[in-house]
Amino acid sequence: MIELHFYFDFGSPTAFLANARLRQLQQKYEVKINYNPVLLGGIFKATGNSSPVMVAAKGEYMLKHDLPRYARKYGVSLKFNPHFPINTLQLMRAATALQSSENFNHFVDIIFNSIWVEGLNMGDEEVVKSTLSKNNFKTSEILANISSDSVKQTLITNTQLAVDRGLFGVPTIFINNEMFFGQDRLDFVEEILQKPLK
Amino acid sequence: MIELHFYFDFGSPTAFLANARLRQLQQKYEVKINYNPVLLGGIFKATGNSSPVMVAAKGEYMLKHDLPRYARKYGVSLKFNPHFPINTLQLMRAATALQSSENFNHFVDIIFNSIWVEGLNMGDEEVVKSTLSKNNFKTSEILANISSDSVKQTLITNTQLAVDRGLFGVPTIFINNEMFFGQDRLDFVEEILQKPLK
Repeated sequence: MIELHFYFDFGSPTAFLANARLRQLQQKYEVKINYNPVLLGGIFKATGNSSPVMVAAKGEYMLKHDLPRYARKYGVSLKFNPHFPINTLQLMRAATALQSSENFNHFVDIIFNSIWVEGLNMGDEEVVKSTLSKNNFKTSEILANISSDSVKQTLITNTQLAVDRGLFGVPTIFINNEMFFGQDRLDFVEEILQKPLK
Repeated sequence: MIELHFYFDFGSPTAFLANARLRQLQQKYEVKINYNPVLLGGIFKATGNSSPVMVAAKGEYMLKHDLPRYARKYGVSLKFNPHFPINTLQLMRAATALQSSENFNHFVDIIFNSIWVEGLNMGDEEVVKSTLSKNNFKTSEILANISSDSVKQTLITNTQLAVDRGLFGVPTIFINNEMFFGQDRLDFVEEILQKPLK
């Protein structure tokens, strides 16, 4: 079975698209997806990169043309979040804390959807609480985890390890040491999933 | 017949890949390609955008992984130019002057290949002269055109018109008013070429 590493931050609409597409690929191929929550802001700071929407014309093109084009291609709903950019620090800490839980995949999908399908303001703690409760998560346990020093430090360390590995943004996928940046590189990932590794 | 507008600057390796791929699509589909020479530096200045290689980790990934991956996909040779970045001002002026010449497509291919396959220093006038002569172009006529005020002004105007149209980089393709940024969006362009317009 092929194993891939998926580096993500919930705040990125292209990470949302990549996650949605990976779920589809998971239905078709034998693949193990390892989720790596990282802080996109931290990666930008460490590498001198910035969000494409910082260039107005690029943001306009992405929002109005490019993201909808890929959403159609994958057959998924995508609504650009009116509260963008969302501060995802607490959400990424929660993802880090939940990484070995059996509910992890469900958590990831719920959070991505709440931001990029439902357009919720998931930077607001009350909105996060009600979203988690509505989806039967142990909200108080998750909130307690978020404030644990070890979770905070793990997320910082994992972000630094990602930078050390060559990341400059998300979504980024690794298969062995081969790096794929962007949801628009998933056709290359699928090519690898289609055939057994040498 | 579908008509597309291809905005390019010879200095961009992704514009080289797009041109090579467009030539392949031209063999398969009925398509008229209108070439629009523009100054990438002018577009960057006007929009606040910058080259991806300005972020070291992104440049590393592009050069070592992403560009070679697409060169393999298209089956074309690509050698990252050791003299990068090439000052293409004179070359873009020459392209502007030659736009309605019957040799235009040949000129475009020769210049792209000299930079991105042969790795020549096409920012050097002597290298340009010898490349043009070797390929049977009227070198002295082209050099005279380059210094014409009307050619200089046309290129500036065309670059501004491109920015007004929403460009923030090259390669960019328009089919009617639909914009596609990047050589990695040519699969979407091909989808349109495959079917008659509504």
